[in-house]
Amino acid sequence: MRQTMKRDVITISDVSDSEIDEIFSLADEFLGGKDSGAHRVSGRRHQADAYLMATLFYEPSTRTRFSFEAAMKRLGGEVVGGADPATTSAAKGESVLDTVRVMESYTDLIVLRHPCEGAARAAAEHVGVPVINGGDGRHEHPTQTLCDLYTLRRELGGETLRDLNVLLIGDLKNGRTVHSLVYGLARFGANVITMAPPGLGLPSEVSRRLEEDYGRKPELGSQIFDNENGGARIGAMYIAPDSQLKTAISRAQLPRANLHFDGEFVEGDGVKISIDVCYVTRRQGERVSRDETVSSEYPVIDAKFLSAKRYKDTRVLHPLPRVGELGYDLDRDQRGVYFKQAAYGVPIRMALISKLLGISPFSTSRPQGPQHDLYRHGEKMQCANDRCITNHAVERRQLTPKFWLVRPTPKFPKISLRCTYCETDFEPPFYGRVGERSLHANAGVPDEMDWWKIVLFANEQEARMAGLEMSASAQS
Amino acid sequence: MRQTMKRDVITISDVSDSEIDEIFSLADEFLGGKDSGAHRVSGRRHQADAYLMATLFYEPSTRTRFSFEAAMKRLGGEVVGGADPATTSAAKGESVLDTVRVMESYTDLIVLRHPCEGAARAAAEHVGVPVINGGDGRHEHPTQTLCDLYTLRRELGGETLRDLNVLLIGDLKNGRTVHSLVYGLARFGANVITMAPPGLGLPSEVSRRLEEDYGRKPELGSQIFDNENGGARIGAMYIAPDSQLKTAISRAQLPRANLHFDGEFVEGDGVKISIDVCYVTRRQGERVSRDETVSSEYPVIDAKFLSAKRYKDTRVLHPLPRVGELGYDLDRDQRGVYFKQAAYGVPIRMALISKLLGISPFSTSRPQGPQHDLYRHGEKMQCANDRCITNHAVERRQLTPKFWLVRPTPKFPKISLRCTYCETDFEPPFYGRVGERSLHANAGVPDEMDWWKIVLFANEQEARMAGLEMSASAQS
Amino acid sequence: MRQTMKRDVITISDVSDSEIDEIFSLADEFLGGKDSGAHRVSGRRHQADAYLMATLFYEPSTRTRFSFEAAMKRLGGEVVGGADPATTSAAKGESVLDTVRVMESYTDLIVLRHPCEGAARAAAEHVGVPVINGGDGRHEHPTQTLCDLYTLRRELGGETLRDLNVLLIGDLKNGRTVHSLVYGLARFGANVITMAPPGLGLPSEVSRRLEEDYGRKPELGSQIFDNENGGARIGAMYIAPDSQLKTAISRAQLPRANLHFDGEFVEGDGVKISIDVCYVTRRQGERVSRDETVSSEYPVIDAKFLSAKRYKDTRVLHPLPRVGELGYDLDRDQRGVYFKQAAYGVPIRMALISKLLGISPFSTSRPQGPQHDLYRHGEKMQCANDRCITNHAVERRQLTPKFWLVRPTPKFPKISLRCTYCETDFEPPFYGRVGERSLHANAGVPDEMDWWKIVLFANEQEARMAGLEMSASAQS
Repeated sequence: MRQTMKRDVITISDVSDSEIDEIFSLADEFLGGKDSGAHRVSGRRHQADAYLMATLFYEPSTRTRFSFEAAMKRLGGEVVGGADPATTSAAKGESVLDTVRVMESYTDLIVLRHPCEGAARAAAEHVGVPVINGGDGRHEHPTQTLCDLYTLRRELGGETLRDLNVLLIGDLKNGRTVHSLVYGLARFGANVITMAPPGLGLPSEVSRRLEEDYGRKPELGSQIFDNENGGARIGAMYIAPDSQLKTAISRAQLPRANLHFDGEFVEGDGVKISIDVCYVTRRQGERVSRDETVSSEYPVIDAKFLSAKRYKDTRVLHPLPRVGELGYDLDRDQRGVYFKQAAYGVPIRMALISKLLGISPFSTSRPQGPQHDLYRHGEKMQCANDRCITNHAVERRQLTPKFWLVRPTPKFPKISLRCTYCETDFEPPFYGRVGERSLHANAGVPDEMDWWKIVLFANEQEARMAGLEMSASAQS
Repeated sequence: MRQTMKRDVITISDVSDSEIDEIFSLADEFLGGKDSGAHRVSGRRHQADAYLMATLFYEPSTRTRFSFEAAMKRLGGEVVGGADPATTSAAKGESVLDTVRVMESYTDLIVLRHPCEGAARAAAEHVGVPVINGGDGRHEHPTQTLCDLYTLRRELGGETLRDLNVLLIGDLKNGRTVHSLVYGLARFGANVITMAPPGLGLPSEVSRRLEEDYGRKPELGSQIFDNENGGARIGAMYIAPDSQLKTAISRAQLPRANLHFDGEFVEGDGVKISIDVCYVTRRQGERVSRDETVSSEYPVIDAKFLSAKRYKDTRVLHPLPRVGELGYDLDRDQRGVYFKQAAYGVPIRMALISKLLGISPFSTSRPQGPQHDLYRHGEKMQCANDRCITNHAVERRQLTPKFWLVRPTPKFPKISLRCTYCETDFEPPFYGRVGERSLHANAGVPDEMDWWKIVLFANEQEARMAGLEMSASAQS
Repeated sequence: MRQTMKRDVITISDVSDSEIDEIFSLADEFLGGKDSGAHRVSGRRHQADAYLMATLFYEPSTRTRFSFEAAMKRLGGEVVGGADPATTSAAKGESVLDTVRVMESYTDLIVLRHPCEGAARAAAEHVGVPVINGGDGRHEHPTQTLCDLYTLRRELGGETLRDLNVLLIGDLKNGRTVHSLVYGLARFGANVITMAPPGLGLPSEVSRRLEEDYGRKPELGSQIFDNENGGARIGAMYIAPDSQLKTAISRAQLPRANLHFDGEFVEGDGVKISIDVCYVTRRQGERVSRDETVSSEYPVIDAKFLSAKRYKDTRVLHPLPRVGELGYDLDRDQRGVYFKQAAYGVPIRMALISKLLGISPFSTSRPQGPQHDLYRHGEKMQCANDRCITNHAVERRQLTPKFWLVRPTPKFPKISLRCTYCETDFEPPFYGRVGERSLHANAGVPDEMDWWKIVLFANEQEARMAGLEMSASAQS
């Protein structure tokens, strides 16, 4: 019923390293060659003449929607869709899953942006045409990451990002672009330094995946900045392959007055390192829940910030829009490449569309399959992320939650479930085994072979209703 | 000044039976032939390369607008327009009639959705390009009906709908798709059974037109369900040619708990009949006036409902969006064809656009002219429907109300006026005759030849101002 | 970095008279020739096949946006963009200047409508692709003026507008279309009579520019209508070359009851003149600040108004939408040409797009450069217009105010600054000279050669901080 071979791009993991290379090569062609120096596409081609693309945006967008539409039209294709859910059946209470099933029959490719995490994955499972995630809540925004990596590749001139020092600064918790980006950077070998206001650091599941899936070891900065005399606090972390993790962050200062960070990055042998890339993100105001308290301090990256020697050859990227954290004085500074970064959105999305529509099909190896087993007993389990599509009052009627079973490691000794939609990790407090009656606390799990037998419980009552009980020994 | 030959599709009556056949044949071509089994259109054609279509949607829409736009673009044509009146001059108080006159000069075809009943007819009268009604309030939605009929034709495989048993269920009062559909079903010979929560049955003017214009006799179900022990009530009606009306609805039960209807349809000779088509509609929340009290019960059609034998081969249709009345378990049930029904929207609208733009002009007989005389004295009469375009504060300045004079019949012994825009019937309480001074109550009207002389009055005062008076004998 | 030759159309002054002729000739071609009698464009051409146009509308629009989009699509080009800032990054606080810099890299031409005066000029300075002003606050709307002038040219059949008597009626203060129009009419030699409710007359800077830049002398009507018996007041002005200004406006009457103006236009020798064109504008409700008190009276132009002999051959124009000031009875009156005027929007905008994209490049002389010197000391000066883009809380961060220094004349004896963005004139109360310490009141300025030395101050404190002081003699 579904096309077996259809490809979706929901997370950056859905394209392999060699496929990303293919996308970049095709984007280069659209820009007149690898060394053309161009960053915008001119003219229109005819490759996609026969195709219609749907753009379904349930959240505001300028760059993503307009560059997708420009990309499709530069390819000769056409676009149906809209940006305002209030003008569609969403206003009448229609689920996004019903909407994509309808759009599937009108168009050949769907680009979806939705506030619920996991929405794009759920949509992709429901339709037979390729789905591209244009951003799903705080989860991922893979085409932004493709643009970001392509910008680095094209602006830094190399074939690889290996050993580049990339400073990520701003809200790293809620910015979905950052999550996709750090995975992408890790895959291509970059070192990442993160700096974030308190409470806005990289989520722990992102750190965990960096370490477990990509072999990048995160280490907290040697100093958490908290100047007594009114300075603001900022958290810093260095993420690199284990062998390289010899860098300390020192002498940090972030005066409240101008919020200009002034830390040094010093290698273990005392050599100061330089920053190749400074990636700035804005405060994601619209994603902060009402019950979160967020520091009012936020770093500002401008010419003054970049006056230190280590930023002499830095490229400054920003996914835009900016709302104060990126100085306008960088607009006329060669280091500021964020408008080129936006421009690259068109050739990159043209290339991705061409790949997914089969105009220039992928010819190299696809990404490897999932690294974890599917949890087999998840029908009654709810995802712990209340913004997950599986917890949405309307959408959940059409969706069965599914989870990856993430086995414990020495560092993370509990069994985790990872939602296959929003990829949130959580650790139900109890587990049992199929065919056994004893209930166990999810901690210090023994090394055991029959993982498929594991049944997890969100609380004791559920376990008791399923006929399991805590053994006296286990309770002690 | 106006193109004499331009064709509008405002109601399903604007296309003849043979023209509907032409549309269906052309849609079949777009799907690769009558028996291709396809339900979605691929690729793009070039027939409409030279044309621009306007989409003016003053109410939310997903399927109608997007499938019209996809249809036009699959034909090679282009679209100008929008879905959000707040972003157009409507926000500055411009009338829809002014707006369509402007769009007429920009485009070659106008698709209009508007909350006022009769808006599309009024628009069609004001412009020289074809107008397609994309839905006007509670009135009609003819292209939905074309899709519905085409779905039945294509899914049931026959050339005709004669003697099909079609069960219409849900809000039959406010759902405009249903009104167009019942006329269409009647024309093609289907039998219709309606089931609706109390207060949401088929409007009486629809029943009347079914009987008078299409020779379908409606009969109330033999039992109005009102189970003493907490059951919900639902009204049922069977509509068939007189000769066939031998079916009784019995043993009805609609327990409040699950709102699953469980009535039998039994022919006069005791033979139970099967349902060929179950057409479900949602509660039209946005069309219910504040002063209407509507039952909170609403039927739910799902696999359980369809477990009775009479639904074994039923095709389930729904115009979508669904908001709870259609079970998700039918998505994977062969009987559920509502997503195909949505998909057929593209080939059907491609065919209709091709016909109206003259790319594949209609070649068979057009619909017959109006069945009633135009009422000649209607300048001061107001349509009784306050949602009619002729009663809209802004639009009425540009519109003169017009009415059909519907002559009395034995069953409906009063003279009616039918608004030519919204097609609402109403019976002014008094009438007189041109050249005579006596006023008469509109009841038991004598069989009289000079219908053009009849002048109707909404109240006695108006009649007196026009110089007429109730005679003593008439008053008695 | 910027294309030196790129052309923007921000005000009607940005195209020369001969270039306007070129645009009109090309529009004639799109209508099948000068005498074709057509007013709408059919079919699609392929000239702009390779191009994408951005439409960025931050305010509601029907005609401007839809006719631009229809024009681009009739030319074979494509459009990216939208009409609802709430669905774009504007909702996240992005500046319009950032947005246009991004759209510049996606598209080949930008059409911008924005509520801030001067927004389009600022945008044009920030990007390397042509920018067309689709309306900036109360400032200008040059493509509307091109349509208006073209309508006159085409409907009146002549090669010139010289000596036409054009009556402008309605809100002449806030209607941006009128400001562009009066400059255009002046350039092509028409006489202009303005009639406006009190408080809604032509702004004084428009009058000044008419006189100084175009040699049209405005004179107040000989009578300001203020009928004792309840009549409404309306202000009238006659604007013509000095040599012709012999016309008096007399016997004015505007009864409150129907607001029908009944003034005569009498030449000095007693000969009554006829009106060739009546240009009506609506009350610009959305542009009236909360603290402005505006007369509730507003003229209504309808068949009754036009019954006087002087209107026998008048063409009635209106930029639409109308909201009561233009009678529907003119829709069927040959004198009402406003729907044709709207229709001409497509060929005119097709021509303008063709010119700016270089498909049919301008071949005649460009407009002459600025008539005033740039003020060299304006970094700290703020534009006096609080709706100017340079005063917008977000945009001002990216913009440095710039001003033309307008030298005093016998009639306007103070030095003025004219904002290069919104073109508002204002007269800072003090001035000094570079290298001198004495401060002077801005009044009765001596004829002096070193204008670049002039430094203006908004108040004494600023001057004092800059080291200047009022001399005792100056204070007296």
